[in-house]
Amino acid sequence: MAPAPFADDAFKGYAVTDTKNWTDFTVMNYKPKQFTEDDVEVAITHCGVCGSDVHTITAGWGAITPPLVVGHEIVGIATRVGKNVTEIKLGDRVGVGAQIASCYTCKACKNHNENYCPTMIDTYGAEYPDGTKTMGGYSLAIRANKLFTFHIPDGLASEDAASMLCAGLTVFSPLVRNGCGPGKKVAVCGIGGLGHYAIIFAHALGAQVTAFSRSLDKKEDVLKMGADRLVISSVPGFEKEFAREFDIVICALNVSAGFPIGEYLTILDVAGIFIMVGLPEGNLPALTAFNLLPNGCRLSGSHLGNHEEMNQMLKLAADKGLKPWIQKMPMKDCGKAVKAVKDGKVRYRIVLEQDLTL
Amino acid sequence: MAPAPFADDAFKGYAVTDTKNWTDFTVMNYKPKQFTEDDVEVAITHCGVCGSDVHTITAGWGAITPPLVVGHEIVGIATRVGKNVTEIKLGDRVGVGAQIASCYTCKACKNHNENYCPTMIDTYGAEYPDGTKTMGGYSLAIRANKLFTFHIPDGLASEDAASMLCAGLTVFSPLVRNGCGPGKKVAVCGIGGLGHYAIIFAHALGAQVTAFSRSLDKKEDVLKMGADRLVISSVPGFEKEFAREFDIVICALNVSAGFPIGEYLTILDVAGIFIMVGLPEGNLPALTAFNLLPNGCRLSGSHLGNHEEMNQMLKLAADKGLKPWIQKMPMKDCGKAVKAVKDGKVRYRIVLEQDLTL
Repeated sequence: MAPAPFADDAFKGYAVTDTKNWTDFTVMNYKPKQFTEDDVEVAITHCGVCGSDVHTITAGWGAITPPLVVGHEIVGIATRVGKNVTEIKLGDRVGVGAQIASCYTCKACKNHNENYCPTMIDTYGAEYPDGTKTMGGYSLAIRANKLFTFHIPDGLASEDAASMLCAGLTVFSPLVRNGCGPGKKVAVCGIGGLGHYAIIFAHALGAQVTAFSRSLDKKEDVLKMGADRLVISSVPGFEKEFAREFDIVICALNVSAGFPIGEYLTILDVAGIFIMVGLPEGNLPALTAFNLLPNGCRLSGSHLGNHEEMNQMLKLAADKGLKPWIQKMPMKDCGKAVKAVKDGKVRYRIVLEQDLTL
Repeated sequence: MAPAPFADDAFKGYAVTDTKNWTDFTVMNYKPKQFTEDDVEVAITHCGVCGSDVHTITAGWGAITPPLVVGHEIVGIATRVGKNVTEIKLGDRVGVGAQIASCYTCKACKNHNENYCPTMIDTYGAEYPDGTKTMGGYSLAIRANKLFTFHIPDGLASEDAASMLCAGLTVFSPLVRNGCGPGKKVAVCGIGGLGHYAIIFAHALGAQVTAFSRSLDKKEDVLKMGADRLVISSVPGFEKEFAREFDIVICALNVSAGFPIGEYLTILDVAGIFIMVGLPEGNLPALTAFNLLPNGCRLSGSHLGNHEEMNQMLKLAADKGLKPWIQKMPMKDCGKAVKAVKDGKVRYRIVLEQDLTL
């Protein structure tokens, strides 16, 4: 039996109503975007809990307008598929990540860089041109443009796919764009949700992977994920034996005051790249030209990934049987989940399981 | 008649003896490196005056040990050629830039990145392994390793080649390493010695070139150099109409406190690169991850160029008849020359002509 579409008045989710009480979620109804023939509607079964959710609901990235439903690592079942959608059929398992729309016409969009579209629309907390506010995946259902809706391959469980939609793609895209593969050496700093995916994917892509962590606590974990070794980064001079060693540093740590960025830049080979995949709230640590000149290294940001990279990542995960390290919780426990993320207690990603009903 | 080699006790140059009186130069004798069969000895005819000379003799980059002869944009005649040298013959016109030796064995050296060798030896103010201090080109002669000595092609005047050896290569290398060519858009910020070369070479390589300057003063000049337009960068909001416009920004300005780096990063296309070719003395201006994330841009340093790039640049200049904009002065006026550089009064490079004799 084909899954039933959702009426416009059936959309509801767990919303934060006050950024000061960001662990208190209230079930609320909201108005979804008007469905178009370019859209896919999804009955959500799983939603990962992302650091972005916490930055947002605590107003760490700036003021927000509550009530707001967050969540942008969404997996579910397609309940309605627009006529212009070719990759997805009614009833398919599909995913939606942190971006829900773009302009489709700018230079970035035309160059398969829709993830850098200047007028991109975030999956939650943003607005469509008609003023409809975007609401995320701690909810019953969502409607998304076809470019930002992805078929989940058979062999990849929905609960495993969920957090790949944002966290996975956020590290996968810069890895592939910077040539990660056999013969390359990748350093991963910060072994949380993003970092654990960086290890898993860099290893799966064929690179040699070194994890940098402040203690030995996660050593066993990172080796199981695919790292070749773990380096303790809390020891002064930790970087010295790795001078010019790496082609890519994926940094999932909070790169702000006190972070030893100068030391990390020395572990890059000539023209190597340091990629910040987190989005720290403050200024980056002070840099001088002498930090960048001796090895001609590059400091870069990265934002999500494009449609093709998402499909490539999901296929790689399915083909190789890659599994993220997740903890499952019922969606009603989203308050506990965001608290655990804020406190850095998650190993390594929480995925919420649907408990809302019509 | 073959040119005569220099005796070890014949080496002399204009030296700074006190960083507080950095415009006072004294002619002094000094001990050159011991000649080896991998070396070329050069009777200097011309030497460009580089911003590095001023940073060094004013102790702006740190304390130095006077007396010191600076200058690393050297052209002259080969007076002695080691048996292992294949590219240069006795009597050839040759050039020496800002690097005089490297280790020849490290990963960088083996990968044609000798300009990033961790134990590279600067043309002046450094030391050879035997303790001999390197002395630069405000002098009668110099000895340099073959990898750092270049044949000056016919059709390129010595006075024009001189400042290419450092200033030219410093912009040419990052341009070619980052794909400068037809279809690419290059912004050049800061129209001094480095900036004027960036315009000349980016244009010659086929890119569209936009110069950014704080006033219209140099408009006529930059258009003659090959820029397609000049943008006044001292007007707040100057960057707005150039959002995502450029593939490469070559920045020859002092990128330190007060420099609008955030604004400049917005003019880069997705994955575009901002390359600092100057080496400012202080911290870079404060940055946040939000400066790098929206377009996934990259911030980079660059250091000189490799042997092949130097030869490619000199050939391009000869083939296309490229000419830098230089002012010639006798070498004895090196004090006036460094003062003019410090005061930003040079349009666009000073080249000293030899006036020392045996």
